[in-house]
Amino acid sequence: MPRIPQDPLPSWNDGKAKQSIVEFVAKVTKEGSPDFVPAPERIATFDNDGTLWAEQPVPVQLFFALDRVKALASQHPEWKTKEPFASLLKGDVKAALAGGERAMLEIIVATHAGMTTAEFEQIVKDWLATAKHPKFKQPYNACVYQPMIELLAYLRANGFKTFIVSGGGIEFMRPWADQVYGIPPEQVVGSSIKTKFEMRDGKPVLVRLPEINFIDDKAGKPVGINQHIGRRPVMAFGNSDGDKEMLEYTQGGSGARFELLVLHDDAVREYGYGPAKGLPDVKLGAFTPALYEQTEKDGWTVVSMKDDWKRVFAFEN
Amino acid sequence: MPRIPQDPLPSWNDGKAKQSIVEFVAKVTKEGSPDFVPAPERIATFDNDGTLWAEQPVPVQLFFALDRVKALASQHPEWKTKEPFASLLKGDVKAALAGGERAMLEIIVATHAGMTTAEFEQIVKDWLATAKHPKFKQPYNACVYQPMIELLAYLRANGFKTFIVSGGGIEFMRPWADQVYGIPPEQVVGSSIKTKFEMRDGKPVLVRLPEINFIDDKAGKPVGINQHIGRRPVMAFGNSDGDKEMLEYTQGGSGARFELLVLHDDAVREYGYGPAKGLPDVKLGAFTPALYEQTEKDGWTVVSMKDDWKRVFAFEN
Repeated sequence: MPRIPQDPLPSWNDGKAKQSIVEFVAKVTKEGSPDFVPAPERIATFDNDGTLWAEQPVPVQLFFALDRVKALASQHPEWKTKEPFASLLKGDVKAALAGGERAMLEIIVATHAGMTTAEFEQIVKDWLATAKHPKFKQPYNACVYQPMIELLAYLRANGFKTFIVSGGGIEFMRPWADQVYGIPPEQVVGSSIKTKFEMRDGKPVLVRLPEINFIDDKAGKPVGINQHIGRRPVMAFGNSDGDKEMLEYTQGGSGARFELLVLHDDAVREYGYGPAKGLPDVKLGAFTPALYEQTEKDGWTVVSMKDDWKRVFAFEN
Repeated sequence: MPRIPQDPLPSWNDGKAKQSIVEFVAKVTKEGSPDFVPAPERIATFDNDGTLWAEQPVPVQLFFALDRVKALASQHPEWKTKEPFASLLKGDVKAALAGGERAMLEIIVATHAGMTTAEFEQIVKDWLATAKHPKFKQPYNACVYQPMIELLAYLRANGFKTFIVSGGGIEFMRPWADQVYGIPPEQVVGSSIKTKFEMRDGKPVLVRLPEINFIDDKAGKPVGINQHIGRRPVMAFGNSDGDKEMLEYTQGGSGARFELLVLHDDAVREYGYGPAKGLPDVKLGAFTPALYEQTEKDGWTVVSMKDDWKRVFAFEN
């Protein structure tokens, strides 16, 4: 009896999106094919928020920052009357973020800087061990998209090196990305604050400074990719305006390239946002109508979470 | 007849240095050993100038910059009277560099910025294809230390991921590091200038800007390691004061760690500089007496090029 090959993407419905992925991987991995890409050049980059894990109602790292503000509030009595902390502590995130970029920066500095990199790693791990997503009632790093987990493994099985390229904090993702995505620390690219080497109690450490080093978003993504990887991706995956330049940069390379955006059109199993008919347009993680037009013009694959994914999360079953 | 295992380090003389490397690798790769390190954590970082290739009489990248100044001089008639270019064009490197960091920065900006990353890669490749080392009369990327090439391959065969961590320009090393060292672009960490994503003639490119992004030297090396790799090295290799903090950071990790410095005490086959008896102390790439003392105090391995290396370059034979 012939062995039936197992479907490496069981959480994907048969359809245009799945087909485009499988066909692309087949042609770039087939020796002798005009589109063949040697294994070392098979670089695949993935946005994180909204592409690999849920980013609604707000990005996970913001939940983390809010919880850190609460945890640190007793050491900062002045926060009771000082924005953006006063509003945060009252639970009014919208008012806190009304201060825009400056408010965001103050929250980041207060919650992400001052400790060593090892201490920060532990803080992230401890938080993830107890915090739960408000809608799914699961740990945040369980709220990852099962079809994308399968896709990561499928690409690696086909000789691809998989990278995260996220606007999120690089040190916020590294402590768990290996276990959850199979992506080791050295293949995580993200936003960062500056660090400084120093001796603390005779031990060499890196201290996290209250200063932004790099924002790995929008036009920053190709810059971050070049800085960390030094090659153009062959495949790139995103879900929003923040990924546009990464996909353009990928497509601009010679030879076969593949670009994909995840469309959040499943308000039941996840969240509905973006340009799909009848869905409200949101600012954060936006898949704008203009971006949707670009996917059609440039031939990028769009994944409908509703139609293309058999299941969204592993915990569904 | 039993198969005699081939020596993976044939260009190393038997001695303390070779022995310390082989013993360390054996104990961290032996399952069940108290010093066992799982393969994904086997990170080895190598300085480049003076550790993997010759850095005398001046670092290779400075030769590159000088040749670029000459090549570009016809487009810059003002350089004839403007320092540091005027001295450079007269062949007086010492006078040109008398302007210190500012002079160096002006040379870098004039020769390393303004083009796309792809154009710069081609410039580096074209230059390496014709330029020759003044003493060895060989292409610069043939002036690499054969014992270190063997060491890189030996470590990879034992599950290590090998990285360059150099004060040199990241984009100056990437075009040839894979072919010469077996180190792919994504495993090169170095100094960099800023880049900017833009569309040129409808094509997405990264343009190199006249602004320093990061100096990957001294206390910058642990910072660069954390930024790119996100783990502490298990083994670190260098040759000068510029590598001190990288070795300290490596040693500061828990479990078994290994640190090594190459001592340039072979004026005949290569160059003699550093703290060895009777050798002049040089400023560039200096292995200072204080650093030598630290190797003894901290138990770092010192490689005598004269005594520990059977041959220095592959072209010797």
